[in-house]
Amino acid sequence: MSRLEGKVLVAQGGGPTHVINQSVVGVAMEARKFNQVTSVYGAVHGVRGIVAEDFVDLTRETTHNLEAVADTPSSALLSTRDKPDEDYCARMFKVMQVHDIRYFFYVGGNDSSDTVRIVNEQAKAANYELRAIHIPKTIDNDLMENDHCPGFGSAARYVAQAFMGVNLDNRALKGVYIGVVMGRHAGFLTAAAAMARKYLDDGPHLVYVPERAFDTDRFLADVDRVYAQFGLCTIAVSEGISDAEGTPMISKLMGEEERDAHGNVQLSGTGALGDVLTQAIKKGLNIKRVRADTLGYLQRSFIGCRSDRDAQEAREVGEKAVEYAMWDNVDGTVVIRRPVLDYSVDYELVPIHRVAGKTRHMPDHFINEASNGVTDDFRNYCRPLLGSNFPQAHRLRAPVVPKILHA
Amino acid sequence: MSRLEGKVLVAQGGGPTHVINQSVVGVAMEARKFNQVTSVYGAVHGVRGIVAEDFVDLTRETTHNLEAVADTPSSALLSTRDKPDEDYCARMFKVMQVHDIRYFFYVGGNDSSDTVRIVNEQAKAANYELRAIHIPKTIDNDLMENDHCPGFGSAARYVAQAFMGVNLDNRALKGVYIGVVMGRHAGFLTAAAAMARKYLDDGPHLVYVPERAFDTDRFLADVDRVYAQFGLCTIAVSEGISDAEGTPMISKLMGEEERDAHGNVQLSGTGALGDVLTQAIKKGLNIKRVRADTLGYLQRSFIGCRSDRDAQEAREVGEKAVEYAMWDNVDGTVVIRRPVLDYSVDYELVPIHRVAGKTRHMPDHFINEASNGVTDDFRNYCRPLLGSNFPQAHRLRAPVVPKILHA
Repeated sequence: MSRLEGKVLVAQGGGPTHVINQSVVGVAMEARKFNQVTSVYGAVHGVRGIVAEDFVDLTRETTHNLEAVADTPSSALLSTRDKPDEDYCARMFKVMQVHDIRYFFYVGGNDSSDTVRIVNEQAKAANYELRAIHIPKTIDNDLMENDHCPGFGSAARYVAQAFMGVNLDNRALKGVYIGVVMGRHAGFLTAAAAMARKYLDDGPHLVYVPERAFDTDRFLADVDRVYAQFGLCTIAVSEGISDAEGTPMISKLMGEEERDAHGNVQLSGTGALGDVLTQAIKKGLNIKRVRADTLGYLQRSFIGCRSDRDAQEAREVGEKAVEYAMWDNVDGTVVIRRPVLDYSVDYELVPIHRVAGKTRHMPDHFINEASNGVTDDFRNYCRPLLGSNFPQAHRLRAPVVPKILHA
Repeated sequence: MSRLEGKVLVAQGGGPTHVINQSVVGVAMEARKFNQVTSVYGAVHGVRGIVAEDFVDLTRETTHNLEAVADTPSSALLSTRDKPDEDYCARMFKVMQVHDIRYFFYVGGNDSSDTVRIVNEQAKAANYELRAIHIPKTIDNDLMENDHCPGFGSAARYVAQAFMGVNLDNRALKGVYIGVVMGRHAGFLTAAAAMARKYLDDGPHLVYVPERAFDTDRFLADVDRVYAQFGLCTIAVSEGISDAEGTPMISKLMGEEERDAHGNVQLSGTGALGDVLTQAIKKGLNIKRVRADTLGYLQRSFIGCRSDRDAQEAREVGEKAVEYAMWDNVDGTVVIRRPVLDYSVDYELVPIHRVAGKTRHMPDHFINEASNGVTDDFRNYCRPLLGSNFPQAHRLRAPVVPKILHA
């Protein structure tokens, strides 16, 4: 048990998700139970708010409003993509020391987990006594050690529901439809489009993930075959698809590049990839009606579409992080395990270096042999993460009327 | 009362909506009550299914499955953009005659209503006794005579919920966000983005509809001002925005054009407009983080986001169409009136020529003087159409912690 008296500080980093506020509220609610916690502060705009001394006092927030915020998508404490170096950390510790902050919880993805690793190391080097725990969050589902990550289930549900609608739409006015899905290096979210399939001829008929090299000729051959069979083709493609040399298709296709503080190329917020694939199909296969949507930021923020299971787990990883810090007095990252077949989770605290800055990819047995679809293994893995009351599409089953004139 | 014995035929035309199946089911359920109706057929792929003699027998569909299909987005009978000419109509009547079809209900937008007008006229000229009634449907909300159109409320709700999420997302990682919304000539759906505003600094801060000429310089000045005030800017822009000469911005910007059978330029299914506006802001205002999403087909098909009021009205216009045909023995188009302040509708049958092929635009009092936003009149008009249980975003209200180091 940690007897270290002091304040708790919680912050959010990286891209928002539908349930990231659940984790912050989980931290706040749990931390408020412990006597050694003098206050619970929230840092505004992540680590940037720490150096700027930009805090709000969550000890003085009503439980009612905390619950309302927990149910709201995106980062209520606002976010950042800053990645602290030694100097940045030194300034953070100075602020923490002045405010007597002894427990730091950072909710984020693999870039944010690496931030926690750096903070942890720098705190030891600076002899500043601090518990720092990383709380997982990412719609990409690409954190090592985790069976799945909070935020993924809700985003997966959005993508699946989007493709359910697209299936119906593309059946009504036949053509080729391309939906570009978020996911820089990991294809989990793109693969979730496959959960839209109910009827045997439902799409997405083709799914392309960044774990497999993308080849335009093979892509066109795939589309040609599906279109010949069904008179339509629905495609889910990851924004991060790359060629055999590992060059992102979007970099190959676009003149300009934009990189964030982590050196990542901008893939989202542009419709370029979808438009270029559209042109390739129109020219290569002479199909007239080809449409592309880039699902964009709505995947991680659309209000009103979330997995209840995802929300519950996001709350629990926040609670567990506080419990590990208080009861076990250790640093690390909270991870989610799935110890049973269907369905339950366990939580564990593992050393931060096993997660920090690393990327988990789709395992081979989730991707089909042709590298253009997912397996039943993936479907079984993904289904419980979508939560309850998953919508259903229905078709008419009225009998066909015998033709008279064209009999 | 029509004593004309024969079959009912129902079909769907144009772009699908979230509630268009409600209208078909409304027709089928109501028509099945009348003794003079020998069967209720559905034409597959609209008028195209009539010439091809492609019918299903809705008299032999279970009520349970009709209700399940009614709750499913998109056109269960599939759709078409075909527009019949005299010859096309003659082939339709031949098929109708052979199958003893005497009542024709066509669910669609202004192109489809024009099809009903042509069918009506051709039937009279061919001396073929036929009741033909148009049932309104369009996410664009641009049918004359109607207070609002079935399909709009659900699409408006999707757009509003999308921008609610975008508001939260763009607050967390500040920048400029552009959401491109469907709407060729009418700005209603783009304007619906304004329903996302709850807090005073919420976006969309700027809304551009096709009813007002789009000027790039004025656009950049608007963005500059909002960005200076809030450190971010959220923009809703219609895909159909045009310059002072009436040339769609997308035509000005894109080399290639694609037109459908009605002569319409392709505006949807491409991210080009968003990308070009993004570049204009990046270059003109030197703002680094600028992102654009084209909301795309999900606006009309996303499963799980619909207005219950919209669904109820879509059902009723189908029922009313059958009642007008059977009890009053007349042709025309069903229109929705709003005779009270808040909130009730009445239905009326008006001559088809008052709606057919015409476009209703946003009235002036719905658009602000600066032509970059909507008025309270529009908000009052739109609010009830979004249906019940509209989601709410919540913010933290925790007090700010006084600074010590930077005091």
